[in-house]
Amino acid sequence: MDLWYTEKVDGSVGITMKIKSHLFHRQTSCQTIDIFDTAFYGKLMVIDGAVMLTEADEFVYHESITHIPLGWIRHPKRVLIIGGGDGGTAREVLRYPSLEEVVLVEIDREVINASKKFFPNLSSSFNDKRLNLLIQDGARFVKDSKVPFDVIIVDSTDPVGPGKVLFSEEFYRNCSAILREGGILTAQTESPFDRTNRSVIRDIYKSLRNVFQHTHMYLASIPTYPFGLWSFAFASNSINPVKTPPIAEYVPQELKYYNYEYARHAFALPNFVREIINEGERSNRP
Amino acid sequence: MDLWYTEKVDGSVGITMKIKSHLFHRQTSCQTIDIFDTAFYGKLMVIDGAVMLTEADEFVYHESITHIPLGWIRHPKRVLIIGGGDGGTAREVLRYPSLEEVVLVEIDREVINASKKFFPNLSSSFNDKRLNLLIQDGARFVKDSKVPFDVIIVDSTDPVGPGKVLFSEEFYRNCSAILREGGILTAQTESPFDRTNRSVIRDIYKSLRNVFQHTHMYLASIPTYPFGLWSFAFASNSINPVKTPPIAEYVPQELKYYNYEYARHAFALPNFVREIINEGERSNRP
Repeated sequence: MDLWYTEKVDGSVGITMKIKSHLFHRQTSCQTIDIFDTAFYGKLMVIDGAVMLTEADEFVYHESITHIPLGWIRHPKRVLIIGGGDGGTAREVLRYPSLEEVVLVEIDREVINASKKFFPNLSSSFNDKRLNLLIQDGARFVKDSKVPFDVIIVDSTDPVGPGKVLFSEEFYRNCSAILREGGILTAQTESPFDRTNRSVIRDIYKSLRNVFQHTHMYLASIPTYPFGLWSFAFASNSINPVKTPPIAEYVPQELKYYNYEYARHAFALPNFVREIINEGERSNRP
Repeated sequence: MDLWYTEKVDGSVGITMKIKSHLFHRQTSCQTIDIFDTAFYGKLMVIDGAVMLTEADEFVYHESITHIPLGWIRHPKRVLIIGGGDGGTAREVLRYPSLEEVVLVEIDREVINASKKFFPNLSSSFNDKRLNLLIQDGARFVKDSKVPFDVIIVDSTDPVGPGKVLFSEEFYRNCSAILREGGILTAQTESPFDRTNRSVIRDIYKSLRNVFQHTHMYLASIPTYPFGLWSFAFASNSINPVKTPPIAEYVPQELKYYNYEYARHAFALPNFVREIINEGERSNRP
């Protein structure tokens, strides 16, 4: 059998992967989860017809969304993850020995169960005693929470369906209220090459800038996401990562993507990306 | 008719694009050229079954391979392009007012003819009086040439078939011999995510380091190339772009990808890429 998973944007462009077997399919109360074994990328998790992760390249996404903010935190103690039910972001956060508590708020228990069954390299984080797992609505959690966090990581699906509220100005305002002084929020913010999605990206950055003193975009290359280039937001009320270098006193040694130079340079955006988020004029000089 | 162009690596992973029409097909003495009109990326040129360029994203490749070296040259006068028969790299080089001569050595006249017919935005460079077009073997040209160049750009196809000789140590040695003091060579060097190709990339960098004092890799995101991330070599006998910032006194204003910050930061490589080219140990500190 010659089976291929093909994911298209705009009905006109896409990525395709050879499938060895379809391991899992479940319609949950929130979304549809599929897990495949692929020929090139190892196991693949798909939610509502969009690639969430593959074993071979998940390190790029999880390291980028985690170590970029933690690079600017001295001795991180408390981190909040909204979404991230596969466990990969928690795995990265838990690499820091100073870490005391990771609160992971996932709306769909079935994502966690599927990850525990098929992605042990990610879901091993659920065995760590410092992980506090809550199955509930992340938007509701940040509205009601009072205890401050060093970092909030919004590891969500796309800004459609259940994930949409996690890109709203109200949500960002509630996040800002539970970040400690010097705290940082990061979030996945789609592909800048997806021209059908540019107004969505622009709106996300407008909302972030209405809430936070400093909002910057950074990029990472993820071959199994549409267009192979993904963006993330870094938002803080006190830290401008373009002007202040990373200050972390501890950097995990096991990383495959992140290093100090990547953190220093990740915020240098191509002109066409700057224009999407209206980040000043084109500048060809420092 | 529902027509799709699909390009696969390793028979197991690929990109796919909806095709509006197949505009051109020709078997030349060197290779097979196809041109399509696509739904998302505008016109597409394919050589021997591999995407060479699309109208929508060619700016990334052509700006990266051109303005990164020229950023380190004060008042560039003479540039050699090996390959580049579509004209896109020449278009970028010719943006510099100090430029006196671009020698473009393309082995296959049919690439130029096809570009003139279907890609006027690239092939317009062939009308510039400063362009000296030679239809001949690029490897032979650098062996016989005596006049020095500021920059040599190796804008070749993949290291198989007719393009293979353009990745050899002998070729690089002949290039080095016709670079002026302070001169720079750049070359496309495949995708670091293509694990079937890693030994090829490693060998290219070994060969370059056997010839040049300074060899560094830089990256750019090209969605229509396999894995969406492409690498380029920067090689020079006098300039280390990691330690010396760009010095160009003129930067073209029309660019969609390149800017000063991109040039400064393009050499910050993820850990897994450093390891492919054995660029020292993983470092998490400057």
